[in-house]
Amino acid sequence: MNLRRKLAQLLVLRASGFSSDSQRRYPRWELANAELQYWLSQGVGGVILLGGSSADLALRCRELQQWAGSAAQNRLLLCADVEEGVGQRFEGATWLVPPLALAPLWQAEPQRAEALARAYGRCTGREAQIIGLNWVLAPVCDVNNNPANPVINVRAWGETAAAAAALSCAFLQGLEGEGVLGCAKHFPGHGDTNQDSHLQLPQLLHSRERLEQLEFVPFRAAIGADVASVMTAHLQLPALDRERPATLSGAVLSQLLRQELAFNGLIVTDALVMEAITNHYGPGEAAALAFEAGADLILMPADAAAALDALEQGCITGRWSEERLEQSIQRRQSALGRCRPTGIDAAAALASLAHLQAPHGALAQELLQLSLQQQGSKGLQGPGVNLIRVDSSLACAPLPLAAPALLRPEAAGFKTTLIDGRSQPLNLEALAPGPVLLQLFVRGNPFRGSAGADGYWAEVVQTLLKQQKLAGLVVYGSPYLWQELQQLLPKNLPAAYIPGQMPGAQALALEALGLGAARHEGGFTN
Amino acid sequence: MNLRRKLAQLLVLRASGFSSDSQRRYPRWELANAELQYWLSQGVGGVILLGGSSADLALRCRELQQWAGSAAQNRLLLCADVEEGVGQRFEGATWLVPPLALAPLWQAEPQRAEALARAYGRCTGREAQIIGLNWVLAPVCDVNNNPANPVINVRAWGETAAAAAALSCAFLQGLEGEGVLGCAKHFPGHGDTNQDSHLQLPQLLHSRERLEQLEFVPFRAAIGADVASVMTAHLQLPALDRERPATLSGAVLSQLLRQELAFNGLIVTDALVMEAITNHYGPGEAAALAFEAGADLILMPADAAAALDALEQGCITGRWSEERLEQSIQRRQSALGRCRPTGIDAAAALASLAHLQAPHGALAQELLQLSLQQQGSKGLQGPGVNLIRVDSSLACAPLPLAAPALLRPEAAGFKTTLIDGRSQPLNLEALAPGPVLLQLFVRGNPFRGSAGADGYWAEVVQTLLKQQKLAGLVVYGSPYLWQELQQLLPKNLPAAYIPGQMPGAQALALEALGLGAARHEGGFTN
Repeated sequence: MNLRRKLAQLLVLRASGFSSDSQRRYPRWELANAELQYWLSQGVGGVILLGGSSADLALRCRELQQWAGSAAQNRLLLCADVEEGVGQRFEGATWLVPPLALAPLWQAEPQRAEALARAYGRCTGREAQIIGLNWVLAPVCDVNNNPANPVINVRAWGETAAAAAALSCAFLQGLEGEGVLGCAKHFPGHGDTNQDSHLQLPQLLHSRERLEQLEFVPFRAAIGADVASVMTAHLQLPALDRERPATLSGAVLSQLLRQELAFNGLIVTDALVMEAITNHYGPGEAAALAFEAGADLILMPADAAAALDALEQGCITGRWSEERLEQSIQRRQSALGRCRPTGIDAAAALASLAHLQAPHGALAQELLQLSLQQQGSKGLQGPGVNLIRVDSSLACAPLPLAAPALLRPEAAGFKTTLIDGRSQPLNLEALAPGPVLLQLFVRGNPFRGSAGADGYWAEVVQTLLKQQKLAGLVVYGSPYLWQELQQLLPKNLPAAYIPGQMPGAQALALEALGLGAARHEGGFTN
Repeated sequence: MNLRRKLAQLLVLRASGFSSDSQRRYPRWELANAELQYWLSQGVGGVILLGGSSADLALRCRELQQWAGSAAQNRLLLCADVEEGVGQRFEGATWLVPPLALAPLWQAEPQRAEALARAYGRCTGREAQIIGLNWVLAPVCDVNNNPANPVINVRAWGETAAAAAALSCAFLQGLEGEGVLGCAKHFPGHGDTNQDSHLQLPQLLHSRERLEQLEFVPFRAAIGADVASVMTAHLQLPALDRERPATLSGAVLSQLLRQELAFNGLIVTDALVMEAITNHYGPGEAAALAFEAGADLILMPADAAAALDALEQGCITGRWSEERLEQSIQRRQSALGRCRPTGIDAAAALASLAHLQAPHGALAQELLQLSLQQQGSKGLQGPGVNLIRVDSSLACAPLPLAAPALLRPEAAGFKTTLIDGRSQPLNLEALAPGPVLLQLFVRGNPFRGSAGADGYWAEVVQTLLKQQKLAGLVVYGSPYLWQELQQLLPKNLPAAYIPGQMPGAQALALEALGLGAARHEGGFTN
């Protein structure tokens, strides 16, 4: 195998899970099929997928492997950010509550919480393996000790090092036991930032001692549990490296992670297209610096050709040893050796998935039930207003047209008003008369630059209370927004919090407010 | 074969194109998989599909046939309302302009328009056949001579009998030449109503003579062109039957369609779950009346078991002859004999579809270009407001996140404000300052009860003109709304009309206003 082809194995490019170019949701980042076919023919060894149903994805994974070639040395790493079950990203598979939902249970009943986290990992791993993914980019090992964190939030397994370590390791055992690779992220710890690395390069100013006590703990545990891969963070940590962000730092990747923490699996960068990197480094140099620092795999280089050129140049000029390259190739091969092979037939994969719906649906339901919080009386009755806040009503996964958040209040006489980032500013005076049921879908999300709330919901709640118009409140997602709003509520006001945003979470939370199943609802109980 | 199993062949039930129950978009109408499997095991002979990508659908068609059994006598009729290309309903396939887009061309260049309608039919038929549908519920043969028609509108092939007849027949030739069945609808003509039969039973008060001169013309032509099936309308036509709607009328189906018009193909009811029927007839009786009147196939009975019971009872009590049943069975068999068999492998089907993207994309583009209307100068420049009106921002097919209607104005400095049926009332005073680009996605759609406009857009245009704030206008869909608004515009004001609402239509219309391709756009050129 020639040098360039060897290096290409270390790239992970992004593709849509849909089969047609016209269906790409993010053409900014997703290669067109002609480009994908070209790069796979050149030996590119990994693809990260987003978009499409589980059926689309099953066909797609097999198509990509076919484009890469069927010989053993062409076997692909196929990955996705399915941190909350495969159904989080690929509809039709199981969508589970966010990990942070288990943290309170762990305080009270650690063994039960860990058993559930293991089942969560098994469910995710089993479905990924059947559909055709052999690498799940989870668990998030960051400790979410900062409520203002705009990107981690409910994705973390804990707000303390101990919870995050125990639960993420339990998840990992379940996941990797199904013959797919896991990925502890984002090393050395992305929990305590209030900036979004998708938009800028956050700093973590803590001492090495504090990092040891908090940030490193879940990563040490994951390495102890033999995690297959670790993903780097686009974070500046002056205590570890005064110059480079973790992703590009030899001090962080080679000295700390490889030597001190004795991690011998795959080190993969977070996506190099993120602006924390591209604002400061060119596309070739970023890839070369990451590899030089100790990364084995380069995720979503801003320009694949430039990355490959720079890596090739580095080999030729002796910027790193030949042995260093062979080690990365070898680690990739070893990881692939841990993966259970995927079946050839996409239709058979979907049939297998269908057989798992009952047990996985029961797990999803148990996780929802134990994470629900509620207060106040039941029995909302319209006419009134069903005021819903989402990030974006376009491409809004939590709100299919038969979503309980729409149908149940409507069946009780509450007419829906939907607010999102593209709406006219909320005007309480212009709402239809009658009581208001407020449903807020808020959680930390990349690219928003804030923890998700718009900053004015506390004021809205206070105004509605003053006008005696607040009929009920549900927060889907952020526990921090719920904590902020709940303290404003009279104890008997019907209200609920649930960390999940999926239709099943809506059904449960609205049930708690006395809004039972609506006619024509359904089809969401997975 | 026993009687009940024979009768079950004549039912067409509705299913989601997605594989999992949790993905059903309309659980009100779509059977769950367990019910589907049951009914297919009982011999139900047809399924109408909605929802899912072309990949989902390809897997689904094969799954349904597998559930029905692989023996020849179990072969299913698999249909969908893909009147505007398979991509209209199943993303990833080709989405074409609405048929009415060709009507103006037909006035000027009838041969070119008919050649394009034939290509339109070939494109639709070829993709349907590859994916696994063997029955396309098109063409609409209704003459849209009534601009207030809430359900036909741009779905018709013409506003005159001659245009509708010529173009729908050309479409039909192209379609059926690909080995799939067509369906002329909605007999005897649904064009001249201003009520929605999904919500109530419209009346058509014309004389028989007038019906002959206008409504019947495209149906006579389609029958002359050997159309495989005709769908009945839920319409009251006192000149033909003083008592029963067309769907349930022996005078309309047997005397008129079967005898006078000498149609010997399949007569299929429109969906019996529509309120025009269910408001007046029970689920069993509606099916029995339709069959008694002359229908061969019963589409979407409100209750499959009740329909089957009533049909069985009618056979046993001699409400119709045994021969009558055998004729319907025989017509269904003959129709299936005209269908080109579907390939077994869904992945191979998608690969075939991919090979057709270039020619079918070129056809889609040609149709878009010839249907564009524009006026005024080019060169919009923000900052300003990109005010978009859609029916529903949830599940909004025309607006993926990379839609030109979003990205192009945003690249020119226009911030998007999105208005739909769930928004707060439009408040022009509260819009951000600066010029307003108005983009209206309006066309007749079932279940809305109006021709789609909200009634106030003329006033909005006049107000913005008075304030000298109207920067540009695009209407996607209804030619009638465009005619109403265009007459209010100064001749130099940048404005465009295009009948299609898909991303490709947006790109073309905005190009006409001087808004060229935005960075990160793309992925929509089919």
